[in-house]
Amino acid sequence: MTQPTLDIIAIGNAIVDILAPAEDTLIAELALTKGGMQLVDADGAAALYGKMGSAVEASGGSAANTIAGMAALGCRCGFIGQVADDQFGKVFAHDIRAIGVDFATPAREGEPPTAQCLIFVTPDGQRTMNTFLGASQFLPAAALDVAKIESAAVLYLEGYLWDPEQPRAAMRTAIDLAKKAGRKVAFTLSDNFVIARHGDDFRALIADGSIDILFANEHEIAAIADVEDFEGAVAKIAPQVPVLVVTRSEKGAIAIADGERHEVAAEPIKAVVDTTGAGDLFAAGFLAGQAQGRSMTDSLRMGAICAAEIISHYGPRPEHDLKALVAAKLG
Amino acid sequence: MTQPTLDIIAIGNAIVDILAPAEDTLIAELALTKGGMQLVDADGAAALYGKMGSAVEASGGSAANTIAGMAALGCRCGFIGQVADDQFGKVFAHDIRAIGVDFATPAREGEPPTAQCLIFVTPDGQRTMNTFLGASQFLPAAALDVAKIESAAVLYLEGYLWDPEQPRAAMRTAIDLAKKAGRKVAFTLSDNFVIARHGDDFRALIADGSIDILFANEHEIAAIADVEDFEGAVAKIAPQVPVLVVTRSEKGAIAIADGERHEVAAEPIKAVVDTTGAGDLFAAGFLAGQAQGRSMTDSLRMGAICAAEIISHYGPRPEHDLKALVAAKLG
Repeated sequence: MTQPTLDIIAIGNAIVDILAPAEDTLIAELALTKGGMQLVDADGAAALYGKMGSAVEASGGSAANTIAGMAALGCRCGFIGQVADDQFGKVFAHDIRAIGVDFATPAREGEPPTAQCLIFVTPDGQRTMNTFLGASQFLPAAALDVAKIESAAVLYLEGYLWDPEQPRAAMRTAIDLAKKAGRKVAFTLSDNFVIARHGDDFRALIADGSIDILFANEHEIAAIADVEDFEGAVAKIAPQVPVLVVTRSEKGAIAIADGERHEVAAEPIKAVVDTTGAGDLFAAGFLAGQAQGRSMTDSLRMGAICAAEIISHYGPRPEHDLKALVAAKLG
Repeated sequence: MTQPTLDIIAIGNAIVDILAPAEDTLIAELALTKGGMQLVDADGAAALYGKMGSAVEASGGSAANTIAGMAALGCRCGFIGQVADDQFGKVFAHDIRAIGVDFATPAREGEPPTAQCLIFVTPDGQRTMNTFLGASQFLPAAALDVAKIESAAVLYLEGYLWDPEQPRAAMRTAIDLAKKAGRKVAFTLSDNFVIARHGDDFRALIADGSIDILFANEHEIAAIADVEDFEGAVAKIAPQVPVLVVTRSEKGAIAIADGERHEVAAEPIKAVVDTTGAGDLFAAGFLAGQAQGRSMTDSLRMGAICAAEIISHYGPRPEHDLKALVAAKLG
């Protein structure tokens, strides 16, 4: 096994987020599940956009946000994801390359457009997401850069992208490539709606040893374990993966590795402005900590520090110097 | 003269801003004039974008920002400006309509794309703008809604849009329509580069009584008067317009109306994050104050309050409730 040339390579949705403040009454009127993510088609997106207030746009995508955070923390990162040849596609490609990430997936010609996520942010900072996957769901296995996957220490995959058929096939191929090259596979369960649709796939991947680091939040660990009780769910899944990381919002996060449990509190913050990207940036901090050879506890703390930064402002990409924030707290 | 059905209608560039933090060394490396605005072509914009860090996008345009601020303050507003039929055009149209502004200019088919402004924000909060005018410069006189211009109490024009030929002709037509309908014309000089190119046009408009309310900053008043000394410049221009408003950044602002001088200090703020839109929102507050029948001094204070809000965060559109901010300070 050769020395890795990248700390991580991720495969994920290539999305531009459209974020606007919204009152809880609007969430109710639109019959959205507050705090969740739903897929919408082009017409559904247009209808929701028509109900949305004045917005701002920022590159997003779950795994892409994680990679952006890791790049900000000094990791060598690659990203694979499908944009269309349009303005939002140029925005996504620009933003991820501007922070030093290796992103070479060619833009897809013609319709549909680049993926967009309409995010309603309520006064409590909670985000409710509505994703039009557009070009993102047409990521072909041919877009995989085999050499880069083989030479990255970790392959990172987002559960969201398991839903469309082409990227799912591409991700299965990527897992095989990474495993054969002796690399680790990290996987985030993303959202309960994906678990509802593809939980059996995920359980099989966990059971057959495909996943080395599994990320979940409290809802997702219960869904994947099919056990309501938090400790019961953790006890069921933890023995099946080398590292299990579960985030618990304001209750902090835990990691269980080799049977040992590590736990951190949430970082204190002044005000929750927008939770978009909280889980993504937690994963960024944790994985960067691991890439830097830090302890489980310090890796969790890095996750908590990065999550706290992202929820203190609008949008899913870091605005402050993550390296400096980590250095100030952990050295 | 019938009762106006709109408080204001503006003609301006329809731009999407692309904002990113930048060090002063990058401004120097790119040979940009810090704090200024320059026009760039498509290739120039692509080259600068390539040098820019990870960015966020937000609707902009000088007069459009002013109108957005006035709408937030409860004014009845219309906007005329040219977008292309592309993603950024949809973003611009969405954002201005979402705040209740009457915007009906049809999108233009084909190339060039919707106008974009690449904004480098240095650590001191100063913004350096590079505008690719795209579709915006092809606003035809045919896009003017005659009935709306005739029925708006104020026609608001931005100097930036005087540069391209078609919008210049449209704006001259609009001035005639407004004047014949007995409406007021407000004009912002925008930037010294426009004064350098079209100062004689502006001086003629001022001299022939076309402009009822003139907005300038310290640099612009000196340029239009061709007098270096601030007081000398003000003394030369003030007698030629019913209302002259000059903003002076941290030194506050003055208005001279009917020979009487009014002056306010700048609003205190915690930190200048991004000065993009400061002048635009000052104009919004002042014009909204006038529309609401407030005194000159209170209108200036409303301008200062709105400018302080906009420079306290990224982007040129208000994030906080301007009505509430004004009510808290002025009642």
